[in-house]
Amino acid sequence: MDEVAAIFEPQKVVLVGSSIIREKVGMTSPQLFKSVTYNMKKFFRKKTYIVDLDGKTGYATLDRVPGVPELAVVMLPPKQSITHVEECAKKGVKAFVLITGGYKDEQRQQLLKLRQKYKVRILGPNTIMGVINTANGLNTTFERNTMPKKGKIAVVSQSGGVGACMLDWACFYDVGISKFAFMGDKIDVNDVDLLRYLGKDASTKVICLYMEGIKDGRKFIEEARKIVKKKPILALKGGITQESAHRAKSHTASIAGKDEIFDAALKKAGIIRVEDIEELMNAAIALSKQPPMQGDNVAIVSNVGGPAILAADAVVKNNLKLATLSEKVKKKIETLYSGVDATNPIDMIADARAERYEKVLELVLADKNVDGVLIINMLKSCFFEPKDAKVIPKIAAKYPDKPVVDVPAGGEDFALVYKVLGNTSIPLYNLPEKAARALKVLRTYGKIVEKH
Amino acid sequence: MDEVAAIFEPQKVVLVGSSIIREKVGMTSPQLFKSVTYNMKKFFRKKTYIVDLDGKTGYATLDRVPGVPELAVVMLPPKQSITHVEECAKKGVKAFVLITGGYKDEQRQQLLKLRQKYKVRILGPNTIMGVINTANGLNTTFERNTMPKKGKIAVVSQSGGVGACMLDWACFYDVGISKFAFMGDKIDVNDVDLLRYLGKDASTKVICLYMEGIKDGRKFIEEARKIVKKKPILALKGGITQESAHRAKSHTASIAGKDEIFDAALKKAGIIRVEDIEELMNAAIALSKQPPMQGDNVAIVSNVGGPAILAADAVVKNNLKLATLSEKVKKKIETLYSGVDATNPIDMIADARAERYEKVLELVLADKNVDGVLIINMLKSCFFEPKDAKVIPKIAAKYPDKPVVDVPAGGEDFALVYKVLGNTSIPLYNLPEKAARALKVLRTYGKIVEKH
Repeated sequence: MDEVAAIFEPQKVVLVGSSIIREKVGMTSPQLFKSVTYNMKKFFRKKTYIVDLDGKTGYATLDRVPGVPELAVVMLPPKQSITHVEECAKKGVKAFVLITGGYKDEQRQQLLKLRQKYKVRILGPNTIMGVINTANGLNTTFERNTMPKKGKIAVVSQSGGVGACMLDWACFYDVGISKFAFMGDKIDVNDVDLLRYLGKDASTKVICLYMEGIKDGRKFIEEARKIVKKKPILALKGGITQESAHRAKSHTASIAGKDEIFDAALKKAGIIRVEDIEELMNAAIALSKQPPMQGDNVAIVSNVGGPAILAADAVVKNNLKLATLSEKVKKKIETLYSGVDATNPIDMIADARAERYEKVLELVLADKNVDGVLIINMLKSCFFEPKDAKVIPKIAAKYPDKPVVDVPAGGEDFALVYKVLGNTSIPLYNLPEKAARALKVLRTYGKIVEKH
Repeated sequence: MDEVAAIFEPQKVVLVGSSIIREKVGMTSPQLFKSVTYNMKKFFRKKTYIVDLDGKTGYATLDRVPGVPELAVVMLPPKQSITHVEECAKKGVKAFVLITGGYKDEQRQQLLKLRQKYKVRILGPNTIMGVINTANGLNTTFERNTMPKKGKIAVVSQSGGVGACMLDWACFYDVGISKFAFMGDKIDVNDVDLLRYLGKDASTKVICLYMEGIKDGRKFIEEARKIVKKKPILALKGGITQESAHRAKSHTASIAGKDEIFDAALKKAGIIRVEDIEELMNAAIALSKQPPMQGDNVAIVSNVGGPAILAADAVVKNNLKLATLSEKVKKKIETLYSGVDATNPIDMIADARAERYEKVLELVLADKNVDGVLIINMLKSCFFEPKDAKVIPKIAAKYPDKPVVDVPAGGEDFALVYKVLGNTSIPLYNLPEKAARALKVLRTYGKIVEKH
């Protein structure tokens, strides 16, 4: 197994921390050590050994760990971390996740020397949360009981805070995750290594990046270009202004380049750029569940007028087109449901239930003038009931090349329909504008696949 | 009492519907009539009389309604509605809310003739949900048990669907509402009438509009200009593209003008335009809870690095500035907390608890270089606990001229802090970008107040 793979797929892990050391400012704390221990014992389905720097609490020391763990997770102050990385490396450990931060430049250099000497790979330091692999239950985070559900989205974050926010988001909104990796200072294992690994990872279908800077832009672009043919990559960039770039430098020691250069690099790499964490998650959900969109033409099928108009506005704002339905399809819909004007955006009127959604959706998806469908099904002010939504994945499955997204617009309405469709292939959004942006991303990825 | 006021503040209401008539396509239905009856009986704290077109179900007929109700709520097919509007008008009813739609042009003309003849005022038809007044419990919607909590935000929606979505949003996210009005076809009572009424309504501090078109632009601008001196008006516009404008015409019979003209009109009126329903709600919450921002300089106070960088990016993207803290304040913070770099955005590090937030926030708010503060307090990956957030409204209250917004970024983190701060003066956002936009709106309103 290569060393980067060992970070995610170890058979044996040694967790090196301390149940007594507490840093004045920093993340070394008995509490956090206890929490990581708890998570590893609870979720990791392979072997975990604990090495406690205290030595008197009954935990095993490194000598007593049988065999050679593939991965060591170290959460000590910089000086002690370095000592223990070397000790583990001597024992034959090849992969390291360093949780804590506060390393000085010379300490980073020391780590890099160990990397060279022992041919090991290091994720971090300053990863804060480390890694999660939902396939084997590996979870080095110190958030007790925080484990996202298994899914197809991988997240790589340079920042602990942004990563933690995405993790919190994924758990709360039940987003399916394959891997989480927090890069921190990335003195060794970097975006390129992680992209290469995730590109080959069968359980990952979409890769999400939060980045503040890239070290080797050329390699990064090269690697990304290879991957995007098979799976999409999304990126959120922090530090795009002069002021925040200054902060990024002190935060994760990254040099954030000019935003235009970064933007051009992402385009060249075939990476889709997003504007915030919610858009990142929303786009990833769409890409993990639906096919790329092969043309610009979107049909809107709704049981309310106003939100359908907002959806139409959003489609056009995102440089997509409102599909012109074929006359045959329009006529069929209008014959079936007198009073319904089947001009796109189609307002099926507030009394539309499952049967009307089923028939109209089928007609619209079969129309060659339509490349994707944005459905709106509100409950409030309408007759629609959550169970009616079951017809949507059923019909969408018949047209596997045309993306379908659904908008049970609002608060409670969204939550109620989510209970019915959350685990299906249909991505759900609480506002039409978010669904339109998701379709835009599916279209963008469609173009990237064509081009690369 | 003037007739528009009677729509919201009647002492007696007569609800005219039918427990047997069901339209094939349309909103007249025994079920909906039952639901409106249920809501009126449950929430309205004055008198409600029910007139059932059936006549045999034991409900009173109009003759049996004692005295003269100020308001009649009519939910019948167009023809019967018109008949009953006239009957009520003859009895002396001065204000009408017409729930159902499907009126032909000539039927609208008939209603307008009644309006002239009897000097009555009509909201609708096609209001779908009618009106809500949280002060007296008036609720003509057919969503059972859907009543937002009492608050300072008024919502006027031309669309039933968009209004219903906002209502659902407000209930689910616990947004405080003063009044809801669904305008529908607005053949009589229009934006100008409602603005005039809400401008004087003491319980309303912020007015939110969803509109697809304006009929008398000049009057609208005049009325708005008067109001924005005292209270802010926010607007979301549907039908901004040619394609969706076509739909808006058939939807609520509005003629949507060119978007640039509309945009210029809003600017002239001192109305703040927003991009979607979430932004509308978020901006309204900020304006209802915090003062306008009197300068461009925003300080960011955070316990995480990455999200603070995203916040800084968003501040600059919104044409605000990152405040340059005075040297004295920076030094004080750095002396108090070694390891903290007090350059804005301030990363107080993940172990910051209530005490550090309290001290740093106080120092930053006292700094004359700071016009507003964006706080980030994540729980995940940090030591912060929800109860720690209590210091925020406490300190913010000492500086009533400087807005403070808070970002417990993420999913569960947001929900947990919302439980502590949701009912305080501090607006909460689940992502830094949304908080930055809220500050931008507070700044925009600051400029509007200066100018008008």
